[in-house]
Amino acid sequence: MNAHVVALCGGVGGAKLAHGLAMALPPAELSVIVNTGDDFRHLGLDICPDLDSVMYALAGVADPVRGWGRRAETWSFMEALKGLGGESWFQLGDRDLALHVERTWRLARGATLSEVTAHLCQALGIAVRVLPMSDDPVRTRVLTVEGWLDFQEYFVHRQCQPAVRDFVFAGAESAQAPADALAVLERPDLRAIIICPSNPFVSVAPILAVPGIRSAILRATAPVIAVTPIIGGKAIKGPAAKMMAELGLEVSAAAVACRYTDLIDGFVIDSDDARSQPPPGVRFFSTATLMSTTEDRLRLAWEVLKAADLLGTVA
Amino acid sequence: MNAHVVALCGGVGGAKLAHGLAMALPPAELSVIVNTGDDFRHLGLDICPDLDSVMYALAGVADPVRGWGRRAETWSFMEALKGLGGESWFQLGDRDLALHVERTWRLARGATLSEVTAHLCQALGIAVRVLPMSDDPVRTRVLTVEGWLDFQEYFVHRQCQPAVRDFVFAGAESAQAPADALAVLERPDLRAIIICPSNPFVSVAPILAVPGIRSAILRATAPVIAVTPIIGGKAIKGPAAKMMAELGLEVSAAAVACRYTDLIDGFVIDSDDARSQPPPGVRFFSTATLMSTTEDRLRLAWEVLKAADLLGTVA
Repeated sequence: MNAHVVALCGGVGGAKLAHGLAMALPPAELSVIVNTGDDFRHLGLDICPDLDSVMYALAGVADPVRGWGRRAETWSFMEALKGLGGESWFQLGDRDLALHVERTWRLARGATLSEVTAHLCQALGIAVRVLPMSDDPVRTRVLTVEGWLDFQEYFVHRQCQPAVRDFVFAGAESAQAPADALAVLERPDLRAIIICPSNPFVSVAPILAVPGIRSAILRATAPVIAVTPIIGGKAIKGPAAKMMAELGLEVSAAAVACRYTDLIDGFVIDSDDARSQPPPGVRFFSTATLMSTTEDRLRLAWEVLKAADLLGTVA
Repeated sequence: MNAHVVALCGGVGGAKLAHGLAMALPPAELSVIVNTGDDFRHLGLDICPDLDSVMYALAGVADPVRGWGRRAETWSFMEALKGLGGESWFQLGDRDLALHVERTWRLARGATLSEVTAHLCQALGIAVRVLPMSDDPVRTRVLTVEGWLDFQEYFVHRQCQPAVRDFVFAGAESAQAPADALAVLERPDLRAIIICPSNPFVSVAPILAVPGIRSAILRATAPVIAVTPIIGGKAIKGPAAKMMAELGLEVSAAAVACRYTDLIDGFVIDSDDARSQPPPGVRFFSTATLMSTTEDRLRLAWEVLKAADLLGTVA
């Protein structure tokens, strides 16, 4: 039986489905390729927000209320930093900081981001494979009505306020996908490639911009299925819907599916959008896609796997 | 009237007297030159333990119980770092970490240690001048019966256990004293130079090893007075007494005074040691030197200033 599932994902929303898949599958049967376009250097620290969200979700230490960072977090560092006149627009919890310091230090000593991530996963007791989309720096930049902004400047500092016009993934053209990421996409026993409910413009697009990843997906014989980040014309979290409107796109699950038509065989929409018309060559599956609880994550993972297996059988 | 006082000091003990002097004098009348031989890079962070102790003491945020670090400290970072398999032999509190991150970041952007220290002092509301002994790296190394150890490896990781044979201050010969430090030592209105009750081998000796500092002290016409770190044959805190024994020296205040004879005019011993014989050319002053309370710090500062002024009058 085809045994390996690869999930592509960004931060919070994607991380929830990755967690669901990790609960649904034996650890050896899942690899998660994570967006690193959000990564940035802040206060001298190498911060990888999406890798962190995925690792925290998979390790079961993510904060369930805030939606980002670690549970049982404390904020003494931030408080003291403010007292020293330091930059305080990017929130760094005391526990969270340990990850950034440890990663920065290991990278400075010459380890690759893949190696550091593997080490951190092991320390956090994460058994599934978490792979950065590249060990080379790729940096998402956002063209707004006010000009170009670095991603975190747009996303956190400016809270997604300036209307967007375009995105670039600086460094992507010369970035290499890690050999491990290409290897899992090229596995002969691939069961499915799942595009998690992440922002199509700034979470999924950077992954697909890394040379080799898109072509490996196009070559794969396994079904490719995406999960909508839009329910009833709204994003669950984050700026996906706002971005679609600003770019002059219809704000709908079907419009997201359209962006992926060359890649996907199936697309999971929310039951609320069950009447949407799929683009040609894409089959829609509808189910409840909102993941409020841990059970929701597992249930959606099962639904997505079931849909993928159905697509696999049909093919 | 001669108006400016310069204190040379290391960490905790020295920082207490520096704090006493800061309470006793108007801010413009005190400069503190601090040992940086203990500085080290840990987890990619530039840590300056003595500068930190002095700044925390002067800002009134030092922890009164532990004797090092910040009061109201929390330890989430350290806990999380252990969970990630990180190096945990050097304790970094969450609040304390803000100072290290902010300093490391500013140094990486090209600021000197003097500039960063001035900025941090301003942010912490410290009005007296705190000057590192050099902006160039000087690193204390300890020759022990087990071989050479970096200072923090010896001091924190090995808890001063291996017996010492010698010390070197790597980089000292080519290090420059900051212009500001030389300028305060060369002020024509210098009232006194005070060597705080710090470890003579690893806190005061590194400062004196920086070219220009010892000679500036020798040239100064102001009285030079040291305060004993040894009371009744014991160190208040730290390894000074243990080191003296291991080096085959008498463990006494008088033996410390002997190490400074070429530099000092006066030496403040504890009342418990009132019968000690001073070395030639040095006048002993005895008073209670243990600083348990904030009042003790201020009272000792007054006593030291009074003794220095007496020496100044005699000269």
